[in-house]
Amino acid sequence: MIIKEVLDESGKLYSKALAHVSVDCVLFGFKDNRLNALMLKLKGEENWMLPGGYVYKDESLDAAAERILFERSGADKIFLNVFSVFGNVNRSEEYFKDYPDDLWHKQRFVSVGYYALVDHTQVTPVLDVYSDVCEWVPVDKLPNTIMDHGEILKKALTALREQISYKPIGYNLLPETFTMPELQALYEAILGQKLNRGNFYRKIMRYNILIKQAESRKGGAHKAPNLYRFDEENYKKALKEFNW
Amino acid sequence: MIIKEVLDESGKLYSKALAHVSVDCVLFGFKDNRLNALMLKLKGEENWMLPGGYVYKDESLDAAAERILFERSGADKIFLNVFSVFGNVNRSEEYFKDYPDDLWHKQRFVSVGYYALVDHTQVTPVLDVYSDVCEWVPVDKLPNTIMDHGEILKKALTALREQISYKPIGYNLLPETFTMPELQALYEAILGQKLNRGNFYRKIMRYNILIKQAESRKGGAHKAPNLYRFDEENYKKALKEFNW
Repeated sequence: MIIKEVLDESGKLYSKALAHVSVDCVLFGFKDNRLNALMLKLKGEENWMLPGGYVYKDESLDAAAERILFERSGADKIFLNVFSVFGNVNRSEEYFKDYPDDLWHKQRFVSVGYYALVDHTQVTPVLDVYSDVCEWVPVDKLPNTIMDHGEILKKALTALREQISYKPIGYNLLPETFTMPELQALYEAILGQKLNRGNFYRKIMRYNILIKQAESRKGGAHKAPNLYRFDEENYKKALKEFNW
Repeated sequence: MIIKEVLDESGKLYSKALAHVSVDCVLFGFKDNRLNALMLKLKGEENWMLPGGYVYKDESLDAAAERILFERSGADKIFLNVFSVFGNVNRSEEYFKDYPDDLWHKQRFVSVGYYALVDHTQVTPVLDVYSDVCEWVPVDKLPNTIMDHGEILKKALTALREQISYKPIGYNLLPETFTMPELQALYEAILGQKLNRGNFYRKIMRYNILIKQAESRKGGAHKAPNLYRFDEENYKKALKEFNW
């Protein structure tokens, strides 16, 4: 059960915040060859939650999402995108059923889900006053979450998987030069499945976003693998184009 | 300016409806070889609007979207998907600036955008009590709209274009058998651009969703074009699969 001080502290927002609308953020990072999401634990709460919060009356929804993510996790200047909205009756009311009815948090909240894929080395998780854990959690085995945060995370993952089937991914997530198996490992971590090497190579080459380097990687007993880097201009073009 | 009776009538909802949350629906149909959206004009209002409305306190957001679309346009049993949310400050307040401050409609609304692509012949637009026009409007030339409804429509179109770059489209939108040029015309209407015939053929064949018919279409001076139909099972599989 969330401790009273946490609820009191966050409840103080109510005079500044819009009723019924909240935001939850899913921040994905590629770490140790696995897809991770940044998650918190509230003081007194055993289960994980996504960084989330309320929207100020004088603030746009997008600005609220960026502020909330920064305040709750330290992740700054992240461009977030809406992927879905969670609006079932009782999603927030039920979670707070053991608390008094006039608790700000206990009203019905329709929560807007935002997500982004980031370079995890650029994000240093920091604790806010409400939480005692904030860290990267692997998503291949979903952790126990509060409310419908597990469903929110799952749907964000689906959105990310859809995104990589029509847009390139990897820029800023991999070192400046990388091998084909490293790029494939990123795609496999996102898709949660092994990919055929030849098919992957053919499809990724069709984007025309990779430049093969003259030098291959040194060291190791095997034949040195080819190194690639992203062609920034073509990569940006591919982000904007539709694939027909 | 919207006439007072319309506002009074729809404002009666306020005791049943959740504050600050609204829904706008973009229903796309393929008609006369053009992409159309179902739109309304409020009584007394010159500009077009999307079918939209408020969420009842005891109703899920998804159920609200389906109800609103049905009540306002007659389009029934439509499976709608969230594509984005519109949450700028003043988007609703500004539009009602000449009205009294206690008007229900004048509060800040964060509006959830839902969209679907439907067979227009299955939808017979009907007028509700608030509107005097409800019809299919071609989207290749955006009509004048109220509030940010033009932006909402544009963003729905982008979502639809993204969708067809990783999912097949056409089932239920074309007659049971169709020619390759007819399928291509559907894609061109959605993308708003001409496509190369050879590229289109190759890409659509990769989905493995088309079955070439033994008989070709009769009549006409030219060589009869090949007819195709969708392979329902493979089509459904392709909807669920990711393209890697």
